[in-house]
Amino acid sequence: MTPSLEPLLNPRSIALIGASDNAGRIGGMPLDLLSRFGFGGAVYPVNPKYAEVFGYRCYAQVEDLPAPPDLAVLAIGARDVTAMLRRCHAVGIPAAVVYAAGFAEEGEAGALLQEELARFCAESGMQVAGPNCMGLANLNTKAFTAFAAIFKTASLQTGTGCVSVLTQSGNVCSALYGLARSRELPVSHFINTGNEANVDFSGYLDYLADDPHTEIVLGYVEQIRDGRRFINACRRFEDQGKVLVVLKAGVTEKGAVAVQSHTSALAGDQRIYDAAFRDLNVIAADDFAQMADIAMLARLRVRTAGVRIGVVTMSGALGAILTDRFIQAGLQLPDLPADVQARLRAGIPAYGMVGNPVDVTGNIVNDPQFVAQVLEALALTPALDTVVINAPGYMLDRMAQPLIDVVKKHPRLFVAIDTGQADSRARLRDAGVAVFDDLGQAVRALGPYLTWQARRRPAVGTGGISCAVPAASRKVALPPLPCDELQARRYLQAFDVPDPDVHLAVSRETAASLAERIGVPVAMKIVSADLAHKTEAGGVVLNVQGADQAAQAYEQIMENCKEHQPDARITGVMISPMQRGVAELLVGATNDAVFGPVLTVALGGVMTEVYRDTAHALLPVTQEQALQLLRSLKAFVLLDGFRGRPKADLQAATKAIVAVGNAFLSGQSELDQIEINPLLVREAGAGVAMLDALLLPQAAEPEQNQSSW
Amino acid sequence: MTPSLEPLLNPRSIALIGASDNAGRIGGMPLDLLSRFGFGGAVYPVNPKYAEVFGYRCYAQVEDLPAPPDLAVLAIGARDVTAMLRRCHAVGIPAAVVYAAGFAEEGEAGALLQEELARFCAESGMQVAGPNCMGLANLNTKAFTAFAAIFKTASLQTGTGCVSVLTQSGNVCSALYGLARSRELPVSHFINTGNEANVDFSGYLDYLADDPHTEIVLGYVEQIRDGRRFINACRRFEDQGKVLVVLKAGVTEKGAVAVQSHTSALAGDQRIYDAAFRDLNVIAADDFAQMADIAMLARLRVRTAGVRIGVVTMSGALGAILTDRFIQAGLQLPDLPADVQARLRAGIPAYGMVGNPVDVTGNIVNDPQFVAQVLEALALTPALDTVVINAPGYMLDRMAQPLIDVVKKHPRLFVAIDTGQADSRARLRDAGVAVFDDLGQAVRALGPYLTWQARRRPAVGTGGISCAVPAASRKVALPPLPCDELQARRYLQAFDVPDPDVHLAVSRETAASLAERIGVPVAMKIVSADLAHKTEAGGVVLNVQGADQAAQAYEQIMENCKEHQPDARITGVMISPMQRGVAELLVGATNDAVFGPVLTVALGGVMTEVYRDTAHALLPVTQEQALQLLRSLKAFVLLDGFRGRPKADLQAATKAIVAVGNAFLSGQSELDQIEINPLLVREAGAGVAMLDALLLPQAAEPEQNQSSW
Repeated sequence: MTPSLEPLLNPRSIALIGASDNAGRIGGMPLDLLSRFGFGGAVYPVNPKYAEVFGYRCYAQVEDLPAPPDLAVLAIGARDVTAMLRRCHAVGIPAAVVYAAGFAEEGEAGALLQEELARFCAESGMQVAGPNCMGLANLNTKAFTAFAAIFKTASLQTGTGCVSVLTQSGNVCSALYGLARSRELPVSHFINTGNEANVDFSGYLDYLADDPHTEIVLGYVEQIRDGRRFINACRRFEDQGKVLVVLKAGVTEKGAVAVQSHTSALAGDQRIYDAAFRDLNVIAADDFAQMADIAMLARLRVRTAGVRIGVVTMSGALGAILTDRFIQAGLQLPDLPADVQARLRAGIPAYGMVGNPVDVTGNIVNDPQFVAQVLEALALTPALDTVVINAPGYMLDRMAQPLIDVVKKHPRLFVAIDTGQADSRARLRDAGVAVFDDLGQAVRALGPYLTWQARRRPAVGTGGISCAVPAASRKVALPPLPCDELQARRYLQAFDVPDPDVHLAVSRETAASLAERIGVPVAMKIVSADLAHKTEAGGVVLNVQGADQAAQAYEQIMENCKEHQPDARITGVMISPMQRGVAELLVGATNDAVFGPVLTVALGGVMTEVYRDTAHALLPVTQEQALQLLRSLKAFVLLDGFRGRPKADLQAATKAIVAVGNAFLSGQSELDQIEINPLLVREAGAGVAMLDALLLPQAAEPEQNQSSW
Repeated sequence: MTPSLEPLLNPRSIALIGASDNAGRIGGMPLDLLSRFGFGGAVYPVNPKYAEVFGYRCYAQVEDLPAPPDLAVLAIGARDVTAMLRRCHAVGIPAAVVYAAGFAEEGEAGALLQEELARFCAESGMQVAGPNCMGLANLNTKAFTAFAAIFKTASLQTGTGCVSVLTQSGNVCSALYGLARSRELPVSHFINTGNEANVDFSGYLDYLADDPHTEIVLGYVEQIRDGRRFINACRRFEDQGKVLVVLKAGVTEKGAVAVQSHTSALAGDQRIYDAAFRDLNVIAADDFAQMADIAMLARLRVRTAGVRIGVVTMSGALGAILTDRFIQAGLQLPDLPADVQARLRAGIPAYGMVGNPVDVTGNIVNDPQFVAQVLEALALTPALDTVVINAPGYMLDRMAQPLIDVVKKHPRLFVAIDTGQADSRARLRDAGVAVFDDLGQAVRALGPYLTWQARRRPAVGTGGISCAVPAASRKVALPPLPCDELQARRYLQAFDVPDPDVHLAVSRETAASLAERIGVPVAMKIVSADLAHKTEAGGVVLNVQGADQAAQAYEQIMENCKEHQPDARITGVMISPMQRGVAELLVGATNDAVFGPVLTVALGGVMTEVYRDTAHALLPVTQEQALQLLRSLKAFVLLDGFRGRPKADLQAATKAIVAVGNAFLSGQSELDQIEINPLLVREAGAGVAMLDALLLPQAAEPEQNQSSW
């Protein structure tokens, strides 16, 4: 059990070691902020040079303090940090913030200093933020322990904050705080994690999941150090209905290089990050303004909001443009039901539009009663989840009162795009209407926010596909690794992955008689734990017809493989009937360095690679999630009756996918990878069959940067 | 020759018919604007009710005016418009603006009114804007003939304008004007085209290409009515180095429906619009704020700007995020040359970055001399085209003077992203630095603007691929249409599309002897002008081996086809050697309803359809453009030595693509479509061969909405 971060994030008393009387210096700025904004707890500046700074009595030594504070802030050089932490610990201070740079980000000597610091924290149980960080602030208690100039320029909130900012970069922390405040979002915590020698991003996230004030976290990460803890924290956010918006740097190859040269953090596999964020219901963001706008929407707490948008404009052109942009952002504009259209048409002239987008035309806004009817109809129809109104300021002003009345009456998300400067903006916001300046800004916030809302809802109509989390997976003994294909098949079969009629021939005679017995064209393949690349070894012959060809193929395969790798242990030659189906899948599972066991599915074949059309998920997955993964492939159409082909057996395919996940989880302590490539999928009702199976053991030496999985 | 639009867009005198003394009404607002902003020419209000309005003498009838003005503005109802235009024409007024709604946008009766109006314009030669439009404004002469409230709220410029706003929607025109002015962009013309009964979008564009003030046009279109004129106007923009930014509504299916129900305009094929905009060097935009930001960049006239960006930050994190976003926007961050890195490293500490992005670290901005050195190095290196500086306001202020000095000395585009509120913004802008508030905003403007700049430059190093526009194409007689495949092949061969060894069998005996003579497996295919779908008719047999099989296949094909369509005229059965190559292409040409002859290329096969991986271009194309089209396919890797396959013969493939285009242009008066599917592409040096060819004649009845091509 990790000790609580309460002393770091909600300190009742604070010492500032290396205090300065200059508010422009890091030893002075937090004292200035604490004093200026009226922190209620005790504040102890420590510096033998002063008797008093910023109105606080100053102490010469940490040992002189009248009582041990919750938190010590160290505004001293890197080389002195660990020694000072020891002294703080000795007098009973449970937590510290370390500003100093000059640690792991600055070469080998710095890395050694950081190791020493981390070791001390682990041994002592002291909770330490940083090093190389801008610090922390609890805006609700005014406990400022950060040296961030933004606190002086951005307006300070009056009420209780609900948005926390949590970043691995100090500059980003300031920028996000400034953007949140410019939208009048009340902030709970300001947290810059820095080098994370002791408390890391996931640790803070864990705390914020329980923090009664925090409802929304705006996060910035370059690297997640503890994937398991991150996953757990995200799941707790989800359970408590909290919102986590994260910008991850290093999503392009060049961006990852920049992250690495900047922090020596490995950016990780972006496709897995994307999948993990989706599975963990994290909203992935692209820029800071977008993050603050998403927080603005999330703060309205309209839980019924969703992707089905009704658009209201005073201009057909703007309706068309908004339609384009919303649909490109993954949202939907359903046609309004006939009765709603009829109600709208009663007051909208023929050249206006009532389908969706709704063009009420410019004249209508002069009739507040009809405006109220339109808005009420859109608030009540079950065809919509969200209503967006686009209007120039003076027209929005005329609609403001009916809009406010409707919003107060009905639990539906209403969003306004004001292309002018409406006087009613503040009133609308107070009533719970999100107001944007610009359609691009609105689309960039609504797209990710509403798709996230929709993802959180239980899916309906899965057509016999199970939504249940797979039962506690059975434990099956792995074959000794590396193993041959027959052993891999047997292991997977034990988890109910269907295996076709497979036979082993250990002589040309058995090959011939097996082929004769099977009676249709057969596939023949070398079985060897040492030959992973069977085709390259000349170990595969397809479409073998009858006994004679089979005997010949047997000898050819043995000869090829012995020549290819003379010392390979060979079990024999596998013989199975040639199989035909609707499609072939690749189903794989492996250990991601950050997130642990992950699943990969794709259509088999070269085009998947050309078009990078793969889907990934954290394990375990339910059958329903497996189906969603398949549906997320662009090539899914090939399984779904493309151009008159039969539909594929998705029931069997998704069962097999779940089974591969379970097989990996069961063996994860020894396995690096499972891959079935291809899994043959026949038409609906006719099942699937693994045509090839591979188990790869973990490397003897664990790789660098491996997670705690 | 169309008469000049000078009286509409640069009138020296204006009559307002239906004048009002109320500045809030459409008959009063233009008079208020003309008077308020001091239009220098004569203004004649016309309305028997008044003796004087807004200080202008008012006339009872248009026939009473002391002299015929250049332009009449009609603020009267739809039913009276054409009669009034006749009277205006009779007294010698050459042009008019018609505000009235109630024309084609309002059902059949309105459409008839609009037809009458259009007919009168065509007969009389009068130039008429609208109907159903907000009107026009020449901001340089203060000739306001629009009833747009935005002119009262947005600040009026003092100098000469260079940005013109040209839209098919009045609301969009106002919104764009407001956004341009909020960025202090000086405007030349404000043009809302309305229903375009007479002068259309392309007509105005044509005028603006010659307008000495207009350098940049911000356009909004739902439908291009005259594709040929649009193409010509765009080419003239290009020749004169002018910039055209266009937002096209209706790019999604649902958006197209909204456009259609709003204006009854057909949105057209979006892929062809995309291709045409690219070929015509139009910058395609997504929203209005982005358009105004692009104009801000274009106005700086830094012709050397391009996609190779150098990024300077005070934070490694921001460097990484900017890198991600710029690369995702299609831009490049080349590594800086070693000598430049060495110069930067001299002043940047070890934890900063010098590669690109450059993290100068926060301390550096205190040393203006070193800042100047960094900026100068980035301004001079031939590795970059553009430099982007991201800094919080107070840091940007410290860098402002060295930045201004460098910008004045060197012709390189410098862009600043100010995440604070720098005091130096106005000074930076005056010196030619574009300043953005937010990284998202900067990326959305720089992405399309810089890729457009790069596209305008001549390409280098095409590896023997010709950049020349194809020579005036030879004219070859088309076979009588519909024609069979052999006739189609002969027609295409005449344009140098290579045809493989193809023979015609008209009996089972000739089929047998031909197969024997060819000596390798052959393909056999029905030849008939009436059977376009040969496989469905059972008219194709592949991999036929030897004389016996060929005779058998011949009979089978004839039997199948006779059963499939008993009355089909059958020429015989085509026999050709089975061919193998690196890849198969689809090469097609057809007539687009808006843009005329267009080319389509794709990899053959079902995956192209699954992944919608096709490329399009206006015809004719050069061999170099054909290569760019192929390269723009995601599947291009399959032609380029994918996973050890041989590289495809791009020289031959691009020659054949150019030839298909020429063959279509030669026959375009009769052809609806040419398609070679597949064109077999062999390895480099081994050429291409058409494996199937199809010519489709135009339908006897021209379809609705066909263009003038």
